[in-house]
Formats: sequence, structure tokens, C-alpha cells
Amino acid sequence: MVQIRHALSVKRADNFAEWYQAVIAEADLAEESGVRGCMVMKPWGYGIWERIQRLMDARIKAAGVDNCYFPIFIPLSNFEREAEHVEGFAKEMAVVTHHRLIAGEDGKLVPDPEAKLEEPLVVRPTSETIIGDAMARWVQSWRDLPLLTNQWANVVRWEMRTRMFLRTSEFLWQEGHTAHETREDALTETHRAIEMYRACAEDELAIPVIVGEKPENERFPGAVETWSIEAMMQDGKALQAGTSHYLGTNFAEASGIRFQDREGSQQLAHTTSWGFSTRMVGGVIMTHGDDDGLRVPPAIAPHQVVILPMLRDKPEDAALLAYCEELRDAIAGKDVLREPVRVLLDRKPGKAAAKRWDWVRKGAPVIIEVGGRDMENDVVSLLRRDDLWNMENGKPNFSTPSRTETADRVVAILQDMQTALFVEARDRRERNVTRDVNEFSQIEALYAEGASAPGWVEVQWSRPTGEELEAVIERLKALKLTFRNVPVDAPPADGKCIFTGKPAVERIIVGRAY
Amino acid sequence: MVQIRHALSVKRADNFAEWYQAVIAEADLAEESGVRGCMVMKPWGYGIWERIQRLMDARIKAAGVDNCYFPIFIPLSNFEREAEHVEGFAKEMAVVTHHRLIAGEDGKLVPDPEAKLEEPLVVRPTSETIIGDAMARWVQSWRDLPLLTNQWANVVRWEMRTRMFLRTSEFLWQEGHTAHETREDALTETHRAIEMYRACAEDELAIPVIVGEKPENERFPGAVETWSIEAMMQDGKALQAGTSHYLGTNFAEASGIRFQDREGSQQLAHTTSWGFSTRMVGGVIMTHGDDDGLRVPPAIAPHQVVILPMLRDKPEDAALLAYCEELRDAIAGKDVLREPVRVLLDRKPGKAAAKRWDWVRKGAPVIIEVGGRDMENDVVSLLRRDDLWNMENGKPNFSTPSRTETADRVVAILQDMQTALFVEARDRRERNVTRDVNEFSQIEALYAEGASAPGWVEVQWSRPTGEELEAVIERLKALKLTFRNVPVDAPPADGKCIFTGKPAVERIIVGRAY
Ligand SMILES: [Zn+2]
Ligand SMILES: [Zn+2]
Repeated sequence: MVQIRHALSVKRADNFAEWYQAVIAEADLAEESGVRGCMVMKPWGYGIWERIQRLMDARIKAAGVDNCYFPIFIPLSNFEREAEHVEGFAKEMAVVTHHRLIAGEDGKLVPDPEAKLEEPLVVRPTSETIIGDAMARWVQSWRDLPLLTNQWANVVRWEMRTRMFLRTSEFLWQEGHTAHETREDALTETHRAIEMYRACAEDELAIPVIVGEKPENERFPGAVETWSIEAMMQDGKALQAGTSHYLGTNFAEASGIRFQDREGSQQLAHTTSWGFSTRMVGGVIMTHGDDDGLRVPPAIAPHQVVILPMLRDKPEDAALLAYCEELRDAIAGKDVLREPVRVLLDRKPGKAAAKRWDWVRKGAPVIIEVGGRDMENDVVSLLRRDDLWNMENGKPNFSTPSRTETADRVVAILQDMQTALFVEARDRRERNVTRDVNEFSQIEALYAEGASAPGWVEVQWSRPTGEELEAVIERLKALKLTFRNVPVDAPPADGKCIFTGKPAVERIIVGRAY
Repeated sequence: MVQIRHALSVKRADNFAEWYQAVIAEADLAEESGVRGCMVMKPWGYGIWERIQRLMDARIKAAGVDNCYFPIFIPLSNFEREAEHVEGFAKEMAVVTHHRLIAGEDGKLVPDPEAKLEEPLVVRPTSETIIGDAMARWVQSWRDLPLLTNQWANVVRWEMRTRMFLRTSEFLWQEGHTAHETREDALTETHRAIEMYRACAEDELAIPVIVGEKPENERFPGAVETWSIEAMMQDGKALQAGTSHYLGTNFAEASGIRFQDREGSQQLAHTTSWGFSTRMVGGVIMTHGDDDGLRVPPAIAPHQVVILPMLRDKPEDAALLAYCEELRDAIAGKDVLREPVRVLLDRKPGKAAAKRWDWVRKGAPVIIEVGGRDMENDVVSLLRRDDLWNMENGKPNFSTPSRTETADRVVAILQDMQTALFVEARDRRERNVTRDVNEFSQIEALYAEGASAPGWVEVQWSRPTGEELEAVIERLKALKLTFRNVPVDAPPADGKCIFTGKPAVERIIVGRAY
């Protein structure tokens, strides 16, 4: 096979973590801000998040959930409810203590000692307690239920070790919070939300996920059930990519969400919460990136098609631009994935070849170059990002459809690419899940020092609890492994627990994780 | 004329400020959160903001401006640049000083003294400085210009006296920040942005505005030109509803935004900034509200049509619901204002009449009630929010179109209402701008104690500066008046300055303001 000169400075196989940083830098997705643990999301990275947000928001609205907006600040006392139940409570959160800056003695600015808050405020790490307070005001009768709310917001958790998109002190997310009359209604909502995340991840982000319930030790504190979607990154690690919690009446009790039921007696509401964040952009990178940069699934690409006119600062440029504008309008007039095609005519100054590689690294699904010769021949030069190289000569794999057929060709490619990226990722995951594991020693062998990217194992277990579970967790921890979830569509157990030797009750996924 | 029993507890004419709070409460738009100066935006209020945001965002994208996201925290030292130039600098801002909470000696939570930040962080009151830092990194050559960025974000300004939507400690907004090669390019962008605000306010919010430049004393600190759109509320006061600033090279110098120009020498970029916030929801209330609550212009109504089936907990309900669902689908299949009609079938439990008045107070543009008799007669009972009362009998002004013509009728009403609300507000404003004022004593008479809602005056002036201007400002201040702006489309000056007696150079609007 011929040698290919890839567009990125680092290869996945050489150093996956460095490759991840290289994609973020070279696809111009985000950068460090200089403010501890906070990143700047640049247009292409933020544009991907905006697309995800818009598609998810449509699903949230279609489910009858109403968006609201709650304060960014939470009084410190709200956390005391929680602290009462937590040994050695210590939380990494941003704490606001003053409301004014003044010039100090040396002319430097300082927080004004006269403007110290009586009660410090915490920048929300999540809005559970403040939304709980609102729900307690809003819910009086069963007629007020279900109460289905969602918020798109920034949240802050003071992280010591950060990694762009995956773990940052400030991140963006949506948090759904709902209250229901009955356990059944709340469970139905919990499962609806996780199914919504699955559909968004698979159909729009082209990321195959495993839907399942978390084991006891991985539950959100206070939750009765925690569900997750788990995606496998190209290094075999899991990314938990969305969670949905059934909270029983625990949070309703803490916040006082009570209602008069149909028989006239007072009841605690059953609540749920579910969230999905900018972390998913990291998931898109680690699922679809390759050694040439990012590949953005068409459904979430800010621009699905980029047209690059090969301008030469000559009078002929005008005709070339007119040719490209007509092409852009023809493509923009088509629909794909139920929306008009998003096409950019990139007129920025710069050499067309340099711009081509910029868009390759960014992962625009289709790149169309138009030069004088293309125009003469009434064609375009088209590159499909997921089929970038001609394997016979090691050069970019241009095709040259005629001008008039280009728009239809683009639509067909985008549709196909959305599916192809998903299938590629799903097949890779399936090759990397080991399902015929019957002894713990097999796990030890798979994850021994030096074994590369073994992916996940699915094992049968007896769902131990308490100390028996803790012992299992320790054994896994020694191999840097954690339980991911119990896949909802796994076949029933029919053997012995790999950990306890007792009869198994279900199958569970084990892997390393971000 | 017959007596009408209005749906709201307070009338505009009786107490405009109380009426404003009543609309917010009774239309369920927002509420106090219990966190100082921060409000909770409830579904209908936040839904209106979401619609405004979506329409404005489309305009921003169409102008080639890229959305980004910058950190919520700004290092204190960033404000020191600014403080150097400001006598007695003191700013009301939320200051983060610690990054951890721990349990104190009495079990209460306290900021951990061990986790004190070396440099305090400020919760952004605006992102000028942090975006300036990024621009300095991103701009090297003229090829990098124009750099057109925008951010949708929450910002915090510690306000002492707050009023929902109009002045809150935390609010939501968009802030555009752009950098350009030349003064001309930056001025063109400044004017483009204010024209975008005008178009959004007038075409989508149905709020007539006056576009103009602010006089010197009302400029944003550091700006060379500040433009605003000014809207007149129903009490005659002005609401500044969007501003756009040409910042010259002042901010580029402070942040170091330099580029190599086409001739190879280093230049400072010319920058602009422009913003538009949740304050506009307050403007919608005070422009379109009436004594029955809010009236939401169709373009920004979360639901444009609400269908209320008159359910009676009887077997016949099923047929009634089927009739309503068919109606909903027929209406949702139509387009209005270039989008599918947004229609809600409200199945919530509750008496239909009570629900009708809830939707009247919220200001849904069209309310359709369907009872058993309507179904028998193959009609619906339709209420148009901006034509609510039958003036002959003082009852709700229902019309009863046939089922099959309802969808088309709804489209026609929504289209008409979008224009009608605008025309009503524009005519009211025009009645309340006094243009034939030649002596300052006329202004004193107009705004004397007891003169009710005199609106604005447009006067000719000589554009004094320095102490001469300050004296004018003091005279106006005694009447609680301020300069609003110099309307871009006012006729040229042809007389004397009402303040100085010198030849006038332009016309300027004077009024009371929020
Ligand atoms: Zn369940
Ligand atoms: Zn100008």
C-alpha cells in the first residue's frame, strides 16, 4: 500500500491523548482561556455544540418538557441539607463572597471588605436544590403534575485536572428536572429521557451507545435508579455520555415538593433528573476523528459542504465566484436529514490548498474545490471527508461530478456519510466487546500491562451488594476497570457470576473510562 | 359603552408599575427566586426569550458572525487596565474568592480558608476584556480580519434595586464583538448591528423603535460612537432596547489587538461591540400588555394558537379530543411568518373557562375553544387576543368559523395581528412625541408635576460639549429627563438650539427612561 501523508501532526496509534489535543488545536475547536480550567469554545467547536443543542432541544420540546431559566447563584445554605448526610463534606465549587471591587492601597483592585455577603453564594454545580425549591412553590395539587422542566445553562465544578470538553471547570449542559404523581410515571420519564439520549447520540452524533442501568455503586447520590448511555472511544475506553436518574421521593422530601393527590391527601412527588453536556463534543472527536483530524457527522456539522474557489487575484475570479455562487444556491436549495443543506462558500483570502487542509482537519463532510479548469469543463472537484485518500496513489481522492449533478450528489453523500460513520463506529465497538468471559482470570489477562486497547467485557454477575460488592469493585480497580452499565437489551443471564460464583442475574459491562 | 370586567387585577391607568408586576405574575412569566436580585424565568417568559433568541441568532448568522463561548470568570487583573483610567473605581460585581466549601466548627458550611484563590475571579459583567485577550491571540494579519464573533451568555451586575426583566443581577444576552482593518469597516458593522436590532424589534417583537446615535454623555465608556434603538413604553417612558458601539482603536490598544496590514506594517484593529438582552421581554410587556394581561406578537409567541377542549370527564370526551387533534394537525400543517404554525392542544385538567382566562392573561394570540355543541355544528369558538371584547355586550368576542376554514382563518389572523400590534404601538408613540417645541419653557410645562405621560419631545440643538453640555444635562435632570438619541432619519436642523440659542445642527429626542 502507498504511503499517505496525513494532515495531523500526531497519529491515534502513537499517542491517543496527544492526538486528542492535536485535533482540538488543529481543527480549531477550542483553546485554553488563561482562566483556570475554563476553555474558549471557538466557532467550529461551539458550532457543533449548537447543532447538538438544537437537535436535542427539539426532542425535549416534543416530549412536552418546558424550558425555564434558574439563577446561577445558589445560597450556601441550600448545600447544608446535603452536607448533613455526607461524612467529611467538602465540595469543589466556586464561592462568591463579595459584591464589589475597589482600588486597594497600592492601586490594585481588591474585593471591597464593606461589600462582603452575609451568606456566600455558590456558582451552580448543578441546579437540583434551587429547582427543587421552585417545584415546591409550583406544585400544590395532582393537577400540577407532571411538572416537566429543563434548563440549558453553564455550570461550574472546580476541577483540579482538566481536559478540554471532557472535564472543564465550567461546562455547558442541559439539566431536565421533572416531578410526577407516581413512581411509575417518574420511571417512565427516566426511561424516556435515556431513550432520547440514545436516539440523539446514535441518529445525530452517529455515536453507537449502550443503554443500561448503573449498578448501585455508580448511582447518582440520592438516586433510586441511574441510567446511562455508554460510548466506546477509539482507544477502547468508555465515555458516559448522558445520564437519567429516578430520584424516588428523596429530593422531594429534602425540598418539600408535596401535592394533594386525587383522594385529597398529601403526597411527596416522585422526581427525576437527566443531563447531557459539552462533554459529548469530546465524544464526537474520540469516536469520529482520524489521523487527518475530525470528521463531523453531517447532522451536527455547522457547515456540511464547503466550496473553495481557487481565486488567483485576476479578472477571471469574478466568473469563478459567480460559478461558485450558483453552485452554492443549488446545493442550499436541497434538503438533507430534514433540513436545508448547510453550505459555505469560503471566500476568505488564502491559498486554496491550504484552506482545503484546514477544512479536512475540521472535518467538514464535503469539500468542493472549483478552479478555472473545473469551470471550463463544467465540473467540480469533490472530496468526501470519510473517503479522503486514493489508496492506489496516496493522493486526495477527488471525484469530478458535473456541475448540474453536484447538488444531488452532495445530498446522497451526506445521507450516506451519516449512516457510514455510525456503522463504522458500531462495528469497531462490536469487535472490541468481549462477551465470552467466564473467569475473572480472563479479565486479568485482557487488561494486563501491555495489552493494547482491549475495549470492554460483558460478564454475567449476581449483583452483589454491600461488602461483597465493595470487594468486587476493588478487584476491578486494581485493573483500572469500572462497571459501566447493565445493557437493557442484553440476553438474560444463564450462568454463574464471574465474581462471586453465585447464579448470575444479569449481564454487566466492564471497562476503562474517561 | 358597556362595562368590561378585565382579566387583570390592576389597570395600566391606575398604577403602571404595579400593573407591570401583575402581568408578570398573572401571565406566569417569571418570579423572584429568593436569590438576591435573580429571577426564575418560567416557561412562558423564557419561551418568549427563546423565540427572540432564535430569530436574532438567525440574523447574526446571516451576517456571517460566528458564535463562540468564553469563560464566565474573568481574572480581577483584567479590570485593572480599566481601573487605571477611572477615578474612584468601584464596581458592583460578584467576586469569587474561594473554590471549596467545608463544614465549619458548628457543622455549618463555610468557604474553605485553605482554598482561597490567589487571584479572585469576577463573574463576567460583560466580556469585553476576555474576548479582547482572545482577539489579540487570533489576529495576526489583515487576512484574519474582519473577525466577527458573538456570544449568548449570562452576565452578572450586582444591582441594588432590581425589577424583573428590566434590571436583574443576572440576565441573559448576546454580546457581539468584532475587529476590523479600518475605521470605515468597523463603522459599517456598528450600523449593521443597530439596523439588525431595529429589524428584530419592529418585525418580530412588533415594537417600533427610533434608531439614532447617543450624544457624547450617553456613550459607552471608551466608545467613539454609541447607537441605540429607543422604544416608547405605554407610560411614555423610553426603553433603550439594544446598543451598538464603535470603539475606535481604544479597546484594541488595551488588549493588544494588532495586525500586519496589506503593506506589511503593524496596525491596531478597529473594534465594535453590540448587545441585546432579556430586558426586551420587559419591553414586550410594556408595549403590548393591556388590562387583560400580555399580548404576545405571533412571531415570538411560544404557542401562537391554543386549543381548549371543553372536557367533561364523560365518554363523549374521546370524540371531542379526536376533533381537536384533527384541528391541531390541520393548523400545524400551515405556515405563517415563514415557519410552521405553533399550536398547542391543552389537555391539562381544569375548567375550560378558567384555562381560557389563563391563556388570555398569558397573551396567546389565538384561543380556540371546542365544546360538544361546536362539534355538532362543525365549528369552533375562536378568540383573537387583540380583539378580545364585544363592545356591545361586554362579553368575549368569539367568532365561530367552520372547522374546515379554521386553519386558514388562523393564519390570516396571525399575520394580521403581527402588523396590527406594531401599528397600534407606532401610532401611540407618534401621538406622544412632541416635535414643535421651540423654547425650554415648553418642556418645563410638558413635564411639570401632575402632567401625565407626556412621552417624548424632539428638539433641535447645537450639540454643545464640555461644561456647556453638563449645564444642559442638569436642567434636564431636574425634570427627570435624559437625552435618548439623535434619530438617524430626522429631518435636518433648520432652527436654533433650544438649550443654547446657537444655530442647531441636529434633532435629538428627550424623555424619561427606564
Ligand atoms: Zn427502571
Ligand atoms: Zn456613524
